[in-house]
Parts: sequence; C-alpha cells; structure tokens
Amino acid sequence: MSYARKTIERMSAYVPGEQPRSGEAARLIKLNTNENPYPPSPKVVEALRNALDTRLRLYPDPHATVLRNKLAARYGLASADQILIGNGCDDILNLCVRAFCDAGAKLAYFWPSYSLYPVLAKMQDAVTVELPLDDEFQFEAHPSLLHQLDSVKLLFITQPNAPSGVWLQRVELQRVIEETNGVVVIDEAYVDFAAENCLDLVREYDNVLVARSFSKSFALAGMRIGWVTGPTELIAALDKVKDSYNVNRLSQLAAEAVLDDWPYFESTVKRIQTTRERVSGALAKLGFFVYPSQANFVFARPPSGLSAKRWVDELRTRKILVRWWDADRIRDFARISIGTDAEMDKFLEATRQFLSPQGRG
Amino acid sequence: MSYARKTIERMSAYVPGEQPRSGEAARLIKLNTNENPYPPSPKVVEALRNALDTRLRLYPDPHATVLRNKLAARYGLASADQILIGNGCDDILNLCVRAFCDAGAKLAYFWPSYSLYPVLAKMQDAVTVELPLDDEFQFEAHPSLLHQLDSVKLLFITQPNAPSGVWLQRVELQRVIEETNGVVVIDEAYVDFAAENCLDLVREYDNVLVARSFSKSFALAGMRIGWVTGPTELIAALDKVKDSYNVNRLSQLAAEAVLDDWPYFESTVKRIQTTRERVSGALAKLGFFVYPSQANFVFARPPSGLSAKRWVDELRTRKILVRWWDADRIRDFARISIGTDAEMDKFLEATRQFLSPQGRG
Repeated sequence: MSYARKTIERMSAYVPGEQPRSGEAARLIKLNTNENPYPPSPKVVEALRNALDTRLRLYPDPHATVLRNKLAARYGLASADQILIGNGCDDILNLCVRAFCDAGAKLAYFWPSYSLYPVLAKMQDAVTVELPLDDEFQFEAHPSLLHQLDSVKLLFITQPNAPSGVWLQRVELQRVIEETNGVVVIDEAYVDFAAENCLDLVREYDNVLVARSFSKSFALAGMRIGWVTGPTELIAALDKVKDSYNVNRLSQLAAEAVLDDWPYFESTVKRIQTTRERVSGALAKLGFFVYPSQANFVFARPPSGLSAKRWVDELRTRKILVRWWDADRIRDFARISIGTDAEMDKFLEATRQFLSPQGRG
Repeated sequence: MSYARKTIERMSAYVPGEQPRSGEAARLIKLNTNENPYPPSPKVVEALRNALDTRLRLYPDPHATVLRNKLAARYGLASADQILIGNGCDDILNLCVRAFCDAGAKLAYFWPSYSLYPVLAKMQDAVTVELPLDDEFQFEAHPSLLHQLDSVKLLFITQPNAPSGVWLQRVELQRVIEETNGVVVIDEAYVDFAAENCLDLVREYDNVLVARSFSKSFALAGMRIGWVTGPTELIAALDKVKDSYNVNRLSQLAAEAVLDDWPYFESTVKRIQTTRERVSGALAKLGFFVYPSQANFVFARPPSGLSAKRWVDELRTRKILVRWWDADRIRDFARISIGTDAEMDKFLEATRQFLSPQGRG
C-alpha cells in the first residue's frame, strides 16, 4: 500500500541539471545550469559579513520589506504591495499554480520551454495545455492556437524562451494575453540578458504577472531569491499561499546588496552578452545551427549527421558540462551556458576536436 | 472578477508573530516567536565567513547531501535516504500535505495546536478533523475520539504540544498511530527542550514521520532549515514534491556547523530549560496557572479575574513582546518564549507591576 497521493505516485519529479560536489566542481567547466560565471557584487560579501552575528537566531522579515522597497524604487513600481519575494523564482511559479489553479483547471505553457511547468501542474492535478512553438521557437497567434486558451486559468510564458534563448515577439504575446481569461505569468528569469523586457505589461493588464530571478544576472543562484510583480490583487493572493518565512535573513540582504551595485550588475551582463555573441558566431562558423539567443546560454545543433548526445558526451569526457534533454523536438540540440571567455575558448576547442575526423571517429 | 481560486479567496492566511524591524527590535524584549535567546554556535559564523565567495553564484546541492549524512550519523539513522531537508520546518509540513492529501481527503490534528495546520489543509482543499485535547492539553485515546481517525490521510501531532508546551503521553500517541491508516507526522519542532522524544517511532511504524527544526534549539531561525525523517518510501514521496533547490547554500552550511558543535547546543538547551523552570515557578507563585512545559516557552493564565489580553498589552507598553491569540480555549492565556535570565527578570518584574493594585488600575 502506498501512502502518497496517486498523482504523486505516478508523476516523475523535475530533474535539475547536474550539480557536482564542491571538490569535483573545481575541476569542471560548468556550463549546464545557466549560472553566472562571475561572482556577485563584492557588496554582497560585505553585507553578509556584517550580518554574521547573533541576529541569525531571529526569524527574517516575513515580508522582506527592505528588499521590496528597493525593487519598487529600482523598477519604478508604484508600491511594494505589487511585489512578492520567493525562495527562488521556482517558489514563485509554484505559488502561482497554488493560488490560481484548482484541480482540473487548465494550465497552459508554450512548448518546448521550462520543464518544471508540467511538473507543477501535475502536482496540483491541473490539466496541461501545451501551445507548440514553431520551428523558429516563435509563436504565431493563429486562431486555432488561441482557441486553446479558452478557459485557461494560468499561462506560463518564458521570455526569452528556454531552452532556445529566443525572444518571443511582443505583439504575439499581447494577443495571447488578451485572449486569456486567466492569469498570465511572464517568466523573465533570463530577461536581463535581453535587449527588451515585458515589465510594462503588468501596468497594462490586470491579469499579468512578471517573475524575475536573482540567480542568473545577479549571480546569486546559491542564495535562492526570486520576485514577482503585478496587480496588488494577484500579489495578495500569492501572499496568502506563500510560507511566512520563505526567504531567509542572509538571502534578503544579498539581494539588497546586488541592487545597490548597479554598475557592477550592468558590466557583468554586458560581458556575458559579448561572449554569447562571440560563441554563437564561432559555433555557426563550425557549421552548427544556433538560435539567436537573448539569454545567458545558447541552444545549438551540431552540423548535419552528428549527434548532439555524442557531442555532449564528448564534452563531458573533457570535463565540460553542458545540458542535453532526451525529449522530442530538442534532442538534436544542446544548451550551453555562457561562461568566462577562457571557459568558452576551452569549450570551442573541445567542440573543434569533436568535429575533426579523429574526434568523430 | 477574481483570478484566485475560490478556496484561496475565502481563506485567511497564517499570521506569524510580530517581527519588529531591526532598529526597533534592539529596543524590545522579544518573547513572542520562540526564538533562542542565545546566538548559534560560533562555528556557524566561521563556516559562513569561509563560504562568502564566488561560490554564491552556484546553485546549492539540491539534495543537501553533506547535511543529511551528518544528521543520519548524529541521530543513528540507517541512511540519508530516510531524511529530507526543508526551507524551515513549515516547508516540510506543507510538503506532507501536498504529498499525502488529495482535495477532499481528511487531514487531522489535535486542537489547540499549531495554527498553520488548518491553513495548509485549506489550501489543499482537504477536510479538517480537529481532535480536541482535554483541559490538561492531553489526549486520551477514547474510542469516540479514535473513531474520528477513520480514513484520515494525514495526522499532525505537535510533540511537545504548542502553544501549551505539554508533553503528550506516549502510550496514547501510539494508540493514535496504530488507529491511523494514513501518515502521522510528529512535529517535534520543540523536542530538544523536552526530556524525551519520539524519534524511535519512525523505526517502529511504516506510516510515521518525525519533523524537526533548526530554528529553536539550534538558534538558526534566520536561516530557515528543517528536516524530516521516516521510511524511505515516505521520504521519496516528499522529495518528488519539494522544490529542487529549496535550501540555499549558506543555510546548509549553517546547519552542518551547529551539528559539529554538540556541547554548545547542549549547554544552551540546558540554560533555557533551567530558566524555564525558574520562570514557571515564579509565575505560579504570583498566582498564574502554568502548564508544565517541555518546550522553550510557557503558556500561562493570569490569576482569576485578570485578562490575559490586558496583561499582554501591559507588557507591550513596557517593550516586552509575548504571544496572545483571540481564539477559543486559549484566549485566557499568553505564550511566553524563554529568553535570557536578564530578560525574564524584566518580564517577571513587569508582570508583578501588572498585578499590583496600581498596575491593574
């Protein structure tokens, strides 16, 4: 006899990318989970160092008031009541499912995209609606596709898309939003690496939330901080389902500190963008198909006849980790996070070796 | 029109105890949320200081392997697979509801106890079954009460009970466990302050989980770490619903560090127990009714005729925070967390003032 809910028994858990143990990590080039290759602002270390005292015994501010105020000021939001902080952006996505989707309700997302969405839907016994992206990983708002948004309670849009890195056309997104009666969450985990963002849409529509992460562009994956903004009514609903003390004391301080060092943030983002363009160009020259990326990773397919899986395995033997999925539509590709220039040179060198007649052997 | 689920719209969120802002906190005696009055082991500061570097940019170990191994060794558990780490013990409780309770399933708990249980049940659309504790905050396993356990999928037992601090009789608990077909979670958040614990029951029954916290006895409320142990099948179900990266890098290290300083842990627990006995005795001498506490707080009722609310308000004007609930069966009481001896002397002095003819005026 099983004690778990049938739903849980049957479902497969979300599988994150490989996280090697500390000792091993030092010997690897880790381009598999979209971490920032540069450390967070030195202000983080300073802020945390000053907080390592008896206050660790006290509960954190359950409302993360200082951080929310800083975010409101930085992003020009009218009030901190339009913001909620999560234990990572995944916490936010989960709260959205819990607040807006009953069992049996329809939860939609573009596909391929973040593979956590269907897992969160399953846990809530929601019915998933996959809206297929076209071969360019774009979405055209055809009536036949829009029709599927009927009575959808929650729609996740990854912007820029993952794992492709492609920027979805804004005009198409707006048509989708207008067609959706439920809540639309624009998951902008990677948006700081893009030329645009959709933050203004939360002012334009009463059903739009924008979710962001401190893990990538702010280099704080180890601290687990995400945030979401939107109409106060939606934020209030999320606040009801969030755990009171979901974000610990030091994580709140770390996020505050990176916001206080905007020039540092901008300069690391720019470095990563520059490296991304260089790597995309180099891969294209080697015959790879590379989607135009607006994120801190590229999604690339080896020249015809060569298997992505073999490429990824080959990189692994050279101590370079990238991400590959054994799934329809994406198994011919690998996703490569953008590392430092030195790391990417090693990655390109290993890729050239793979392409050479001996390498293919 | 509301976008939130009807359930969420109608429910009230859990309300944690007041957490004053940093500046204000320094001027208050904070005896309202059961924090440890002593700082965590100095080894925590040392461990965290050494971790404030570029590794903050990397995701934490999603399985908290080192911490789970340390816990298994410390508590004599056969394998780390019998342990799951949560972002605080509340995360664990929530995961239990999600893993074991379908909408409409019965979720039971003793009452009065932790007021988060009904909130978690509500979110999941579970049906709550409140098993009333008697006037001594004990539970006698009468057939009429046991009958209510029929087809219960999940039962929460707070041991020692909160907010009373009372230790529930083990023999009665075992009858309850044996009568329950679903999962029984023994929530031992405060157990380190008690003379006994129920950890051995996870070996005896295939449906028992024991949940623990690093917030109280280990003085790490600010870092949010809880854990749960039980049969590997139950832990595997919880693992499926947990967020991959639910516990950040520094929190894992902090928890590892306190486990490495067992003498410090034991000595602070002993100090708190000693102070608790002294405060209980002093309150009884002043005419209060005080439940025998096995936790780091006492639950006390003022001498007849005097209102607990007025006592609590009076303490507040003297900058002493304690916890009071406007709820049946407990509104005549206040819950006082055990602080340092100096803090408790001020609390007792303020209480004496309240009792004096002028104070009552």
